[in-house]
Amino acid sequence: MNYINKELPEFNVNAYQAGELKTVTKNDLLGKWSIIFFYPADFSFVCPTELSELQDLYEEFKAAGAEIYSVSVDSQYSHMSWAETTKTIGKIRYPMLSDQKHELTDFFNMIDETSGQDYRGVFIADPKGIIKSYTVNAMGVGRNPKEILRTLQAAQFVEEHGDDVCPANWHPGEGTIKPSGDLVGKI
Amino acid sequence: MNYINKELPEFNVNAYQAGELKTVTKNDLLGKWSIIFFYPADFSFVCPTELSELQDLYEEFKAAGAEIYSVSVDSQYSHMSWAETTKTIGKIRYPMLSDQKHELTDFFNMIDETSGQDYRGVFIADPKGIIKSYTVNAMGVGRNPKEILRTLQAAQFVEEHGDDVCPANWHPGEGTIKPSGDLVGKI
Amino acid sequence: MNYINKELPEFNVNAYQAGELKTVTKNDLLGKWSIIFFYPADFSFVCPTELSELQDLYEEFKAAGAEIYSVSVDSQYSHMSWAETTKTIGKIRYPMLSDQKHELTDFFNMIDETSGQDYRGVFIADPKGIIKSYTVNAMGVGRNPKEILRTLQAAQFVEEHGDDVCPANWHPGEGTIKPSGDLVGKI
Amino acid sequence: MNYINKELPEFNVNAYQAGELKTVTKNDLLGKWSIIFFYPADFSFVCPTELSELQDLYEEFKAAGAEIYSVSVDSQYSHMSWAETTKTIGKIRYPMLSDQKHELTDFFNMIDETSGQDYRGVFIADPKGIIKSYTVNAMGVGRNPKEILRTLQAAQFVEEHGDDVCPANWHPGEGTIKPSGDLVGKI
Amino acid sequence: MNYINKELPEFNVNAYQAGELKTVTKNDLLGKWSIIFFYPADFSFVCPTELSELQDLYEEFKAAGAEIYSVSVDSQYSHMSWAETTKTIGKIRYPMLSDQKHELTDFFNMIDETSGQDYRGVFIADPKGIIKSYTVNAMGVGRNPKEILRTLQAAQFVEEHGDDVCPANWHPGEGTIKPSGDLVGKI
Amino acid sequence: MNYINKELPEFNVNAYQAGELKTVTKNDLLGKWSIIFFYPADFSFVCPTELSELQDLYEEFKAAGAEIYSVSVDSQYSHMSWAETTKTIGKIRYPMLSDQKHELTDFFNMIDETSGQDYRGVFIADPKGIIKSYTVNAMGVGRNPKEILRTLQAAQFVEEHGDDVCPANWHPGEGTIKPSGDLVGKI
Amino acid sequence: MNYINKELPEFNVNAYQAGELKTVTKNDLLGKWSIIFFYPADFSFVCPTELSELQDLYEEFKAAGAEIYSVSVDSQYSHMSWAETTKTIGKIRYPMLSDQKHELTDFFNMIDETSGQDYRGVFIADPKGIIKSYTVNAMGVGRNPKEILRTLQAAQFVEEHGDDVCPANWHPGEGTIKPSGDLVGKI
Amino acid sequence: MNYINKELPEFNVNAYQAGELKTVTKNDLLGKWSIIFFYPADFSFVCPTELSELQDLYEEFKAAGAEIYSVSVDSQYSHMSWAETTKTIGKIRYPMLSDQKHELTDFFNMIDETSGQDYRGVFIADPKGIIKSYTVNAMGVGRNPKEILRTLQAAQFVEEHGDDVCPANWHPGEGTIKPSGDLVGKI
Amino acid sequence: MNYINKELPEFNVNAYQAGELKTVTKNDLLGKWSIIFFYPADFSFVCPTELSELQDLYEEFKAAGAEIYSVSVDSQYSHMSWAETTKTIGKIRYPMLSDQKHELTDFFNMIDETSGQDYRGVFIADPKGIIKSYTVNAMGVGRNPKEILRTLQAAQFVEEHGDDVCPANWHPGEGTIKPSGDLVGKI
Amino acid sequence: MNYINKELPEFNVNAYQAGELKTVTKNDLLGKWSIIFFYPADFSFVCPTELSELQDLYEEFKAAGAEIYSVSVDSQYSHMSWAETTKTIGKIRYPMLSDQKHELTDFFNMIDETSGQDYRGVFIADPKGIIKSYTVNAMGVGRNPKEILRTLQAAQFVEEHGDDVCPANWHPGEGTIKPSGDLVGKI
Repeated sequence: MNYINKELPEFNVNAYQAGELKTVTKNDLLGKWSIIFFYPADFSFVCPTELSELQDLYEEFKAAGAEIYSVSVDSQYSHMSWAETTKTIGKIRYPMLSDQKHELTDFFNMIDETSGQDYRGVFIADPKGIIKSYTVNAMGVGRNPKEILRTLQAAQFVEEHGDDVCPANWHPGEGTIKPSGDLVGKI
Repeated sequence: MNYINKELPEFNVNAYQAGELKTVTKNDLLGKWSIIFFYPADFSFVCPTELSELQDLYEEFKAAGAEIYSVSVDSQYSHMSWAETTKTIGKIRYPMLSDQKHELTDFFNMIDETSGQDYRGVFIADPKGIIKSYTVNAMGVGRNPKEILRTLQAAQFVEEHGDDVCPANWHPGEGTIKPSGDLVGKI
Repeated sequence: MNYINKELPEFNVNAYQAGELKTVTKNDLLGKWSIIFFYPADFSFVCPTELSELQDLYEEFKAAGAEIYSVSVDSQYSHMSWAETTKTIGKIRYPMLSDQKHELTDFFNMIDETSGQDYRGVFIADPKGIIKSYTVNAMGVGRNPKEILRTLQAAQFVEEHGDDVCPANWHPGEGTIKPSGDLVGKI
Repeated sequence: MNYINKELPEFNVNAYQAGELKTVTKNDLLGKWSIIFFYPADFSFVCPTELSELQDLYEEFKAAGAEIYSVSVDSQYSHMSWAETTKTIGKIRYPMLSDQKHELTDFFNMIDETSGQDYRGVFIADPKGIIKSYTVNAMGVGRNPKEILRTLQAAQFVEEHGDDVCPANWHPGEGTIKPSGDLVGKI
Repeated sequence: MNYINKELPEFNVNAYQAGELKTVTKNDLLGKWSIIFFYPADFSFVCPTELSELQDLYEEFKAAGAEIYSVSVDSQYSHMSWAETTKTIGKIRYPMLSDQKHELTDFFNMIDETSGQDYRGVFIADPKGIIKSYTVNAMGVGRNPKEILRTLQAAQFVEEHGDDVCPANWHPGEGTIKPSGDLVGKI
Repeated sequence: MNYINKELPEFNVNAYQAGELKTVTKNDLLGKWSIIFFYPADFSFVCPTELSELQDLYEEFKAAGAEIYSVSVDSQYSHMSWAETTKTIGKIRYPMLSDQKHELTDFFNMIDETSGQDYRGVFIADPKGIIKSYTVNAMGVGRNPKEILRTLQAAQFVEEHGDDVCPANWHPGEGTIKPSGDLVGKI
Repeated sequence: MNYINKELPEFNVNAYQAGELKTVTKNDLLGKWSIIFFYPADFSFVCPTELSELQDLYEEFKAAGAEIYSVSVDSQYSHMSWAETTKTIGKIRYPMLSDQKHELTDFFNMIDETSGQDYRGVFIADPKGIIKSYTVNAMGVGRNPKEILRTLQAAQFVEEHGDDVCPANWHPGEGTIKPSGDLVGKI
Repeated sequence: MNYINKELPEFNVNAYQAGELKTVTKNDLLGKWSIIFFYPADFSFVCPTELSELQDLYEEFKAAGAEIYSVSVDSQYSHMSWAETTKTIGKIRYPMLSDQKHELTDFFNMIDETSGQDYRGVFIADPKGIIKSYTVNAMGVGRNPKEILRTLQAAQFVEEHGDDVCPANWHPGEGTIKPSGDLVGKI
Repeated sequence: MNYINKELPEFNVNAYQAGELKTVTKNDLLGKWSIIFFYPADFSFVCPTELSELQDLYEEFKAAGAEIYSVSVDSQYSHMSWAETTKTIGKIRYPMLSDQKHELTDFFNMIDETSGQDYRGVFIADPKGIIKSYTVNAMGVGRNPKEILRTLQAAQFVEEHGDDVCPANWHPGEGTIKPSGDLVGKI
Repeated sequence: MNYINKELPEFNVNAYQAGELKTVTKNDLLGKWSIIFFYPADFSFVCPTELSELQDLYEEFKAAGAEIYSVSVDSQYSHMSWAETTKTIGKIRYPMLSDQKHELTDFFNMIDETSGQDYRGVFIADPKGIIKSYTVNAMGVGRNPKEILRTLQAAQFVEEHGDDVCPANWHPGEGTIKPSGDLVGKI
C-alpha cells in the first residue's frame, strides 16, 4: 500500500501528555497538520534522543500549524512513568499515544513481527487527515526532526500554491518553479 | 506492505548512463549500497533539481560505497535525449533506469494511478539488496539529498555495529549508545 | 479478441501537438474517422520514418475526414522534447498521445512484455468509434501509410454504400460489385 | 490476444488445390513463410477478386519463399465446385483450406458471429510458424495483395538482419537503419 | 438430451430455395409440420440421392401438411452453386438451409467433430415446433424418405386422436387401438 | 449427447427369455450386432404389436448376425407373466431386459419424466458395442421393424466396405457409390 | 434422515385397485391414517403372502380409520395383470400404487441399488400425513401385518391421549401410564 | 440414509450390566446377532415396560444367538442407580449402554432435537455387524419384543438359506418358498 | 472464545428442584446473579461433595442476590432419582438443570469429548445475564464454593462502584483503590 | 475453545526478572508446574496488589514445584522501570513476561478489544505444559492467590494419584475418594 493521499483511519487511543492522561481520536488531529511519529518502546535507547529532538523543535512545528504525536504500543501508564522517571522524556509537551489496540499500528503496517514493537516510521498528514509524506527506517536508524520540519513546510507550500511545484530541498521563502510547456527540457 | 528488511526483486531494465545505453539488473546492485530514486517523468520540472542535487553529492555517495539509480517509466531513449538537451541532466553520471516494464515500480507500489507516473519515493538497500530505509512524498514535495546521505551513513553504521543503536539525526563520527539493562529509563 | 466492430474504450490521456500540451479523450475522436497509430518509443529509430511518412499524407487523411493519433507510453514531455530536438518529428502536426496509464495500450493489447513498449499496431475507427480495420506487425516491420489511407477510404466507401461490397485493393473512384443471387459463381 | 510472435496451432484440415483434394497440417506450413488468408465464403462476391489478385502475385510470393493458403469454413467439395464453375477461381494454384472444424478460425478468432463466416484476416508466419504480421478488416473492406507481399519481404528482411530495423514502407533493396546510441534523437 | 417434446430453438439462417436466396427463421416453420433433414456437405456423394429421393416424395409431404428443410453448414452460395451444377440437386424445390452459425447444428448436437460436418439426422416437428420423432445414422448410412413420411403420418394421427395409441408400422387408414383397463394383457 | 460412434456402457440386468430368467451384460452383446429396443411398459397397448412384429422378423435379424433386446423398466417377473398371459408376447424368443436399475435407460436418456417409463427408442450397435444408428419417437408413434432391418443391413454394408458410401434407402445387393474427386458435383 | 414427525411429500402416481386403473396423490391420503407398504416387485415370491395377509386384516385397518397402500416400481398394468392372473393378489381390495417415477421411493429412500427394486419398508402416517412409525427389513425378511395393526392402534391412542405414554406391546383397551414426578424410578 | 446392509460404526461406550460397570465396543457385538434398542431416558415411564418385556424374552434371544443392548444418552451411573432403585430395571441382565458421546445415536440418527433424547428405534444386526431390520416409532409408541424376536429369527433363516425367501409373518419351523421361474405369478 | 462480558444464550431445559420437575429458561436467570455450575454426571463421586458444599453456602449466595444452577447432561429423572437415593444430594435446594440438548454445554464449550460429559466449569453472570467470571478445572480437580462466593461478591462490588477497582482477594467491607493519574507507579 | 488438557503453544518472549532482562520460551516452562498470570498493564492499580500477593506466596509455589509467570503486553523495559519505581513491584522475584508479540495473549484469547490489554486470566499448566485449570475474571475482579495455590495442589494430587478423584475444596493431606461401582449413588 502506498499511503500518499490516503486518509487517516478512525482511531481512539489513550494518551499521556505533560502529566495528564487523556484520549486522542482522529477528530483531534483534523484542522492541523499532524506529525505521527512511531517509535519501538518506552524505556528503550535511541528513542529518547529522537523524541527529545522533536521536543526541541516543538515550538517551530506548532508555529507551522502542526501537532506532533508520538506513538508506541506501550500503555499510557508506561508513558507517564517514563516521563516521571526520565529527564529527557519528562520535558516532552506533545501527546504520547498508547496504541495498545494497534489501530494506528495496523493501518500504517508498522509492526515489526520479530519484536512486536513499532518500526521507526513518521507520517505527515494535512489538516484533512490526508497523508502527504512518510519515511520508514530500519530499527536502529534514527530520524532527523529538522528534515521532518522541512518536509512539512514543503508540503504546506505545495498545498497552498497548487500550481507550483517546489524543487528538491526547498526551504520556506525560496522561490519555486511554475510548470509550463515552455519550460520542458529547459531546466 | 512494509519494505524494511524486504529483499529487492529480480529485475532487468534498460538504462542510460553518461552517454551510453545499457541494461541494469538486480545483480548489478548487489555488493554496494543502493539509492533507488523514483521520479515522475523526464522533461518535467522539479525533478531536475532533485536529480542534479543528487549528482552534486554523487562523489560522497560513492565514497560511502553506494550507487545511485534514478528511476522513471520513461524510455532509455528519452533519458538520453533529456541528458543531451538539458544542461542540469547532462551533468548526471549515475545510471538513469527506464522502468517501462514497471518491474521496480510495481514492486515498490510507486505508480500514481491518476498520472501513470512514479511517485517521489527513495529506497535505500544494503549490499545484499535488503531495504533499510524509505521515504515517499506527495507529487510536489521534493526530497533532500543530504538527508538521504545522512540516512545511508546511519544505516551503514548500524549494519557495522550490530549491537549499537544510533541516536536520531546521527552523523558519522558521533558516538552512539550501547543498550544494556542498566540504561533503562536513564537516558 | 477480434476488434472489428468493437467500440473504442473511454480514455483520457495527455498529449503533445505542434508545440502545445493538451489532453485527448474518447470524445475528441468521435465525429471523425480516427487512425490510432501505436509505435514503440520516442527517440527510437524506425519510428520517425513511419511517423513522418504519416505526416506527409496528413493533409490527405484530413481531407478524407480522418484524424491521426500516434500513441506510445512515453510522457507528453518526452514527445515535446523529441519534437524540439528531432527535425522529422518536429514537422508533425497531428496529436501525439502519451499513454502512460496504458488505457489504450491495454484495450488494444499492444504491450510487448519483453520491452514494456507498444507493438506496431494501427487501428482505424469510424466516427462512432467503431473499429473497422487493424494491422499489427512484429517490432521491426514498418507500416505503409499509403495502405492505411487506401484502407480508410475503402472502409468509408463501404460505410456509405452499405449494400456494396468493394473488391480487393479498391481505390476511390473504382466501381464496386453489388451482390445478388444472379452473380453467385459468376465472378 | 496479440498474435505477434505466437506460434501457429496444430491443425489438420481438408483442402482443394488445383483439381486435387488433399489434407493440410501445421507441419506442411513449416519450412516456408506462410500467408494465411481468411475470406468469408465460396461463391461470394468481393472474395474472388482478392483471391485472384493473390493468384496474380503467386509467383512472386513463391519466389520470396512463401506459400499462400486461403481459408474459409466451406467444404473442400465447395472449393472444388467453385473452382470448376468460376473462371477467376479456376485459375488459382495455391491450396484452398476447408476449415469446417474451425481449427484455424478459432485460434485466430476469425468468426463473425452474425454470419458464421470468417472475417477478412491475413496472417504472415515465418518458416517456424511464428506470426510476424496480421491485418483484419471489416467485412466489406478488401485487402491489398501487394501490401501483403511488401510486408512479407520486410518481415523477412528483419528476420535475416536481426540488428537492423527497417523503416516504414520499406521495399527490398532499400537501405535500412542500424540502431545505436549515437542516433537517438537524430533521425 | 432427449428431444421428444422439446421445442425448436429460435434461429435465423440463410437459405437457397429453387433459385432464390432467402432467410428462414423458426417462425417460418410454425403452422406446418417440419422435416429437418441434416446432411454432411454439398457436393458430396450419398447425399444427393437422399436429397433427391426426398424431392421425389415432396408433393406427398406437402399434401400431408409438412415442409422439408435440408440443413448443412455450407453457405447459401454453395447450395445455389450445387443446384446450378448438379442435375439431381437442381430439381429440388424445398428450402436448403445454410447453418453456418451452427444454430440448428448445435441445438441438435449434430456436429461430427472429426469432420466439422453434420451427422445424418432427421427431426420431425409438429406445427407448434415440438419434436415428435428423430433418427440419427452413422455417416455412411442413408435414410429412407418413405419411412420418414410414414412416421410423419403416424405422429399426425396420434396428435389428432389423442386417446389412441397406434400400433407399430401403422399406415394411414389402418385402425388403431384405444387403450382401456379391459385390454391390459389381452393384446 | 449424440450417440453415433459412442460405445455401449457396462450394464448388468435381469432378463426373461422364452420361459427362462437370466441376466444379460454388455459382454453378452459383443460379437454380434445388437438391436436395443426400448418400450414404455409391459401389459400396455401398442407395444405388443411392435414387439411381435420384431419377433416376426427375428430370423432375418439373426441371419444378419444381430440379436434383438427389448428393454423396459418392468421386472423380469413382469416380463414372464406378460409372456405367459398374452399370446402375442408369448411367441417372443428374443431376450426381454428388465432395466429396473435404469442402467441402459439413463445412458440412453430414455426416461419420460412424466410417466417414469421409457420412450420408444431403438439403437443399433455393431459387434464392438459402437452405436451406428438410433431413432426415438414420441410415445404413441410406433416403429417399423422392417426399416430397422434395412438400416442394420446398410450399417453392416458400410462397416464392411469402408470406402464406399451407400445411398439413401439402400437395400442389400444394390450398388453403392465410391467417392472420388472426379465425382464432386456430378451425382 | 429420521422420518418420525416428517410430513409425506407431494406425489401423483398411477394405481390399480380392484379392477380399476386410477391415480393417487398425497391429497387422497389425508384425512385417514395411511399404511404405506413397499414391496420389491410384482410376480415375485414372498410378497404375495405379505400382501394377502394385509388383505386379510383390511377390514380391521379400515375399521381403525386407516387405508393401506402397497407400493412397487412396477407399472399399473403390471399390477392389474398380476391381480388377474394370481389368485392371492386378485383378492386384494386396497390400492396398489405404481411408483415408476420413484416419487415415494426416493422420498423414503427405499431403492435397493443392487436390484433397482424397493426395500421392504412400511410407514404409518397420521391423517395429516405425519409419519409416526416405520420399519424396514432386508430383502428376504417378511413383515407381520398384525404388528402393523397393533402399532397403528398404539400410535392412534397416543395421538388421542396426548399426555399418556403407552407401554410396550400395548393393545387397544389396555390401561396406560400417565407420567408424573411421583412415578420417577417407581415403575 | 437406509440402514439395510450397512455396517455398524466403530464405537466405544460405557455400559452397566447386572451390577457391573464396563465398556462395550463394536468388536464386542461381532460374532453374535445384536438387538440395539434405543429408548429416551432412564427413570422415565413407558421404557421400563419395554425394557422389562425384552428381559422376559432374554433367554429366547440368547438361545437364538443374539445379544440385546439397550441404549440411551444417560450415564452408566444413571443406569446403575436406576437398576438399584427400580425393581423392573433391576431384573435386567443384558448390557445397558451409555451413549453420552452420541456415537450410536448420531450414526442411527436417533436424536430427537426437541428433547435431546433418543427416539424409540430398534436395529437388528447380524454377526458381521450388518444391519438387517429396523423399526422407529414416534415417542409414545412402544415396541413389541415378540415381534423383534420373530424378525430376528426370520432374518437368521434368510441368512442361512440364502436361496429361500420366507413369507410374511414367518415363524421358525414354518416352510418357506424357494423362488423359481415356474412360480412366477402362481402364488 | 473469551466469555467475559458475553451474554448468556437463550435456553430452555428441564430441571429438578427439591422434589419437583420443572423447566428453566434464560429468562428465569435474569434479575439475579447466577452461579452456573457444570459437573460431569449424576451418581458420580467428587461431585456430590462439590454440590453439597455449594448447598451449605446456599443461604449466603441467596443473601447476596444470587441463584445457583447445577448443570449436567443427565435427564431430570436421573437428577430426581439421585436426590431420592443419595442423602447429600437429597439435601440440595437449588435447581439442578438437565442439559440433554447441550444448549448450555455447547455455548460454554463444556463437553469433554472423551467422556461425553461436562467439564468442571463454573460461570458467574450478573442480573442482565452478562458473564463476569469463570473457572474451568480438569476432571478430577474440585472447586472451592467459598472462592466462588468471594468472586461473586467482588464482581458485585465492581458493578456497584463502577469507578473503583478492587484489589486481589478482596472481601466485602474492605476498602478499594480509586484510580487516578497521581497513583500511577505509586502503589 | 476449552483449554483443559490442551498443550501450551510455542512462544519466545522478552522478560524482566529481579533486575535482569531475559527471554522466556515454552521450553523454560516444561519440567515444572506453571502459573501463567495475565494482568492488564504495568503502572496500573489493582494489579500491584495481586502481583505482590502472589509474591508473598512465591516460596510456597516454589516449594510445590511451580514457577509463576506474570504476563502483560507491556515491554520488558516497562516492567523493569515499574519495578525500579514502585516498591511493591520491586519486591517481585518471579519472571514478568513481555508479550508484545501477543503470542500467549492470542493463544489464551486474553485480549480485551476495548482496551488492547489482557484480561485477568490465570492458567495452571503441568510439567508437560498441559493446562489443568483456568480462571478468567472481568476487568475489576481481582484473583485470590491462595485459591490458585490450593487448585495447583489439587491438580498435582490428581496427577499423582490417577485413580483418585479429589473432593471439592480439597487441601493437601485430606483424604480423597476412590471411585468404584459400589459407591454409585452412595456419597
